[in-house]
Amino acid sequence: MSLTSFFEPQSVAVVGASRQKGKVGHEIVAGLIAGGFKGDIYPVNPKADEVESLRCYPDLKSIGRTPDLVVIVVPAKAVPAVMTECAGAGVKSVIIITAGFKEVGAEGMELEQSVLKIAKSAKIRIIGPNCLGIMVPGSCLNASFGGDLPRIGHIRYLSQSGALVTAILDMSRTNDIGFSALISIGNKVDVDELDIIKALGQDKNTKVIAGYLESITSGDEFVHHVERISQNKPILLIKSGGTGAGAKAASSHTGSLAGSETAYDVGFDRSGIIRCDSIKTQFDYAQAFVNQPLPAGPSIAVITNAGGPGIMAADAIERRGLTFAKLTDETISRLADNLPPAANVNNPIDVLGDAMPDRYEFALDVILDDPGVNAVMVLLTPQAMTDCAGVAEAVVEIAAEKSSKPILACFLGGQKVAEAIRILRRGKIPQYDSPESAVTTIEVMNKYACWRSRPKRVIKLFPVNRRKVEHIIDRHLRQGVREIPEMESKEILEAYGFVTPKGTVAMTAEQAADIADQLGYPVVMKIWSPDILHKSDVGGVRIGLNGPQQVRDAFDLMMYRIPKKAPDADILGVLVQEMCSSGKEVILGMNRDPHFGPMLMFGMGGIMVEVLKDVAFYLAPITASEAKEMLVRTKTYQILKGFRGKEGVDLDAIAEGLQRLSQLVTAFPQIQEMDINPFIVGIEGTTPIAVDARMSVEKI
Amino acid sequence: MSLTSFFEPQSVAVVGASRQKGKVGHEIVAGLIAGGFKGDIYPVNPKADEVESLRCYPDLKSIGRTPDLVVIVVPAKAVPAVMTECAGAGVKSVIIITAGFKEVGAEGMELEQSVLKIAKSAKIRIIGPNCLGIMVPGSCLNASFGGDLPRIGHIRYLSQSGALVTAILDMSRTNDIGFSALISIGNKVDVDELDIIKALGQDKNTKVIAGYLESITSGDEFVHHVERISQNKPILLIKSGGTGAGAKAASSHTGSLAGSETAYDVGFDRSGIIRCDSIKTQFDYAQAFVNQPLPAGPSIAVITNAGGPGIMAADAIERRGLTFAKLTDETISRLADNLPPAANVNNPIDVLGDAMPDRYEFALDVILDDPGVNAVMVLLTPQAMTDCAGVAEAVVEIAAEKSSKPILACFLGGQKVAEAIRILRRGKIPQYDSPESAVTTIEVMNKYACWRSRPKRVIKLFPVNRRKVEHIIDRHLRQGVREIPEMESKEILEAYGFVTPKGTVAMTAEQAADIADQLGYPVVMKIWSPDILHKSDVGGVRIGLNGPQQVRDAFDLMMYRIPKKAPDADILGVLVQEMCSSGKEVILGMNRDPHFGPMLMFGMGGIMVEVLKDVAFYLAPITASEAKEMLVRTKTYQILKGFRGKEGVDLDAIAEGLQRLSQLVTAFPQIQEMDINPFIVGIEGTTPIAVDARMSVEKI
Repeated sequence: MSLTSFFEPQSVAVVGASRQKGKVGHEIVAGLIAGGFKGDIYPVNPKADEVESLRCYPDLKSIGRTPDLVVIVVPAKAVPAVMTECAGAGVKSVIIITAGFKEVGAEGMELEQSVLKIAKSAKIRIIGPNCLGIMVPGSCLNASFGGDLPRIGHIRYLSQSGALVTAILDMSRTNDIGFSALISIGNKVDVDELDIIKALGQDKNTKVIAGYLESITSGDEFVHHVERISQNKPILLIKSGGTGAGAKAASSHTGSLAGSETAYDVGFDRSGIIRCDSIKTQFDYAQAFVNQPLPAGPSIAVITNAGGPGIMAADAIERRGLTFAKLTDETISRLADNLPPAANVNNPIDVLGDAMPDRYEFALDVILDDPGVNAVMVLLTPQAMTDCAGVAEAVVEIAAEKSSKPILACFLGGQKVAEAIRILRRGKIPQYDSPESAVTTIEVMNKYACWRSRPKRVIKLFPVNRRKVEHIIDRHLRQGVREIPEMESKEILEAYGFVTPKGTVAMTAEQAADIADQLGYPVVMKIWSPDILHKSDVGGVRIGLNGPQQVRDAFDLMMYRIPKKAPDADILGVLVQEMCSSGKEVILGMNRDPHFGPMLMFGMGGIMVEVLKDVAFYLAPITASEAKEMLVRTKTYQILKGFRGKEGVDLDAIAEGLQRLSQLVTAFPQIQEMDINPFIVGIEGTTPIAVDARMSVEKI
Repeated sequence: MSLTSFFEPQSVAVVGASRQKGKVGHEIVAGLIAGGFKGDIYPVNPKADEVESLRCYPDLKSIGRTPDLVVIVVPAKAVPAVMTECAGAGVKSVIIITAGFKEVGAEGMELEQSVLKIAKSAKIRIIGPNCLGIMVPGSCLNASFGGDLPRIGHIRYLSQSGALVTAILDMSRTNDIGFSALISIGNKVDVDELDIIKALGQDKNTKVIAGYLESITSGDEFVHHVERISQNKPILLIKSGGTGAGAKAASSHTGSLAGSETAYDVGFDRSGIIRCDSIKTQFDYAQAFVNQPLPAGPSIAVITNAGGPGIMAADAIERRGLTFAKLTDETISRLADNLPPAANVNNPIDVLGDAMPDRYEFALDVILDDPGVNAVMVLLTPQAMTDCAGVAEAVVEIAAEKSSKPILACFLGGQKVAEAIRILRRGKIPQYDSPESAVTTIEVMNKYACWRSRPKRVIKLFPVNRRKVEHIIDRHLRQGVREIPEMESKEILEAYGFVTPKGTVAMTAEQAADIADQLGYPVVMKIWSPDILHKSDVGGVRIGLNGPQQVRDAFDLMMYRIPKKAPDADILGVLVQEMCSSGKEVILGMNRDPHFGPMLMFGMGGIMVEVLKDVAFYLAPITASEAKEMLVRTKTYQILKGFRGKEGVDLDAIAEGLQRLSQLVTAFPQIQEMDINPFIVGIEGTTPIAVDARMSVEKI
């Protein structure tokens, strides 16, 4: 169902309208009128005849026609009755402003569900409850109690916190920020962030989608749709409640369970969402995305009338991993020919403290022509002779002529630069309070530009023995076994093209020696028990055993010692295994997030994972280039690719392992969690070995 | 010489005074008058009779008395003559505003030196050249061309960039920020940052010293003095030019060579300086330090009228490593008894969207009494019924009554909170533009409080054989040898109480086997060449050799193979060494910074240092607790202290090694650089072994 009647209704009814100023039921009606809404407004309240000079109806039915949108502000307990009325009247779009639902506990949750039930059966869409309403300046629609409509602009903002919308509205008026719509989604009993983003993705007036979220209703669906929308429009989200303290605060606040931080990161990564860490940075980014083109690369030039801020900008550019542009000889000589001798004609271009607008204008014009420059920052300090407003006008003028590269401004100061900043903002040049904020914004723009031009996602499908895996998993689930034992885990891996070491479980020392003789020496021995997860911790792993006597000794020592260390463990024997050729030990893993689905994990074994937590996650299914990207994201990568003359390992082989794992966990949603640890990988051209594996499954 | 006549002069002469408005020589005189300077003002210019209604003198002599302070604004080439005049007139304090010195190249540098020479011989102190001047609002002294004096306040600001001062002044007027003085230090030919900071340390009107620096004249002296001053007053510095791009920009700007980033970090760490990454954060911090007490711990409570910002604050608190305060039962029941049932009485305390000032007042009052709360953040969003100014007044009132814990505010919005923010600022409650900025500020305050209450620094002195080391170093320096060979390096280490492995260099395979027989097996063998730094890269290290035949083979193989890999290396033989008991390999190192002196380095051997750059630096000499702090700062520490049941190593033994190294490099400034690598350290109670060492020396 489309959400059009929410954003462009022809008529709005307000159920719970009130004559009393200050009451929400009054503010909504007053807001609709003050906003200049062109359609019909129907206040509904059996106790009033008139609200703000409009005829007030005792109920929806008595209006005599079906309003496109109904805003409900009656007390929580009365909402189900109003919803039933809406159903009877054929209403399809409802905003429930009223609070007192899920967020107040079990009783409220029940009430909310009863409201949803009525809505579902009557095919009514609901925004809210517990929300501030919506504002659509372009439709002169103010169906909220957030005060006056903001300026018309190109940002659509959705917020899970209504109060935050009030702050953003107030801020936007001071900073000349415009919106195509502001939507307070409240408890999102029905319409959620994904519905809104999908609706906005088509909107021509919207250049940037921004929002504040505490939770996401359906992670995998969200990723699936948002990835396409991000391709056209940048989506800037604050996702709060990510830390333990934040999540606790969030759950007492909205009653939603915040998802794991890592899952949100990987979900946002995949869908190209730009995650913002504060309202300030969100609007820093938004004003650039709305008003400026994306940079074609990371190379930035700086124009300044003072050395200090130029140096600070240079520091920030390097720290953020961007490139401090090297100007061409032509650019330098053009600058040198026209600027005073004391000016610095290398980046940062210092037009000097006595620079008038013409010098800025000239330098900006020249710099924009330099093919090696992808973005320009214009810095200004308000010195004795500085014509701040004049410089702002010059920048706006040049930017209008040469609009293919992003230009960001940082005019430092207060009153002296206030008018200049207004000129910049109106001229679509984003302004920042420090060189550092401007640089961070360019970094984010560049990152988004790279994401947008990423290669097409093609998931490679390897030929596998799917039926065998199905059989093993089903068998275990039928028996109620959740942890697939190592031997069967390896069978599963082999069915998906992994190579595992040969080996068998021995019950006696003699049997162990026989198995070892057949495998050939050296061998590895591992204690075999479903109850021991970290085998080495209890002395349950011996490597490099070189003959039958060593094998017998190792067997008996494990049998003697381990029961003392792990008295409750059920010990089934000792696995005798061929010893793998040398290589680096890495871990390939998967963890299924309840919101976002299977997250693949890559890391180097040993201390790198255990102590340094040097791991990378990515949402399955994964492409070849994403698999390689996972490697690159770890510090471990520096070791794997070889360093100081040491030969690296077969990176493609690891990437292939990740893709095979991806295929396996995508095909079998029963697999909840698994690790291939260690996955031993040698130099290029060698076959990596999946030495050990853990896998847990669940009925679905 | 005291700098008092700069800050509190009784009379000021302006040489180069001008009648022409807009000229710097005019602005200075006009600024002095407009600022309300109480003493005498003497314009000096042979071409004018009167400047701004003041009598103008043809030269300094004709004034007839010696001015306390002379401000020079004549062209650069005329400055030496004016300086000679100053010397003749007995002037002791001069501000040179004029630019065109060191910053324009060699000729300017020469001019600057000639000015300095005159000053030195006449004992004249100079601020500048190439500066904006100074402003002391408390003395009504505006000896600058920066415009009007700012408000009187408690921040002293010094800046190596004059233009930045103009931006800061302008910003301060908009944000109600006051200063005890603003000093533009320019090229700092004489008076530098240290002089200023030393002078400010005594000033009763100064609560916070803040500054922008591109370089520090004398690092070790700076650290020595500033450490004491930081103990009483927080010092907030921006040090720019730290990156490659920044340093290049800085050197073309001021002609100063920016020091190494690490050296500045360790120097600032030692001296308790709070390093700021932008003007914005600097003033974020300054307003809290000036107006609020330090927190007694990291535990923060949050009061809010909206859930969203409360969650964002909670996230920020946890991410910044602070503690989200757990309220006592008493606090919770006091809150629950008096706030509406829907309010959240756990941290973050949500007083709800309809909260009037009384609810904030009550909650803040109760929270400040909670013994587990060290700092309070007050958040507000301007909702429909919010009385923003009233809440601000309530906060100011409670803060005035209960002033022992820091209170920071974050009122989100624009026009609706503008008046409230003014009330907060006047009431000494710092206000932040996002919960995140407020949290970062509390983090910095808490870190400074911890630094201030750090244990007294006591450098332990170990009994050593200093004379032996002196002898070895002198002998090498006499022979022109800069790299002390491994054998002698180890003698030096032994003289300072390190234990090194036994071993001797063999010239032949037979000799090698003999040495090994004497040492006992297993042994280690290492190629012995002054030209091969990374022995393992050329196959020049063999370990675990278990008998004379293995030793002979290893010798001959090295002699055969290594010359092929390193054809230019002078190979002197092979070192045969006892094999060290097992343990972890760490590196102890030292690098002498030209500005700050010896920096000690600690890191774990192998990939941890080579690939992950997981190292910690600290300025020598070092205390026992600082040495341990170095360990804690590395990720390696997690490994060294033991993990997942694995026993840790003797951390005290590493700390002692660092202290002995500290004593060595402090006693011998000839040592420019050294590494003990690996330094093998075992479990607690074992003696660590300094296995290999490199050391380079220089005549001083």
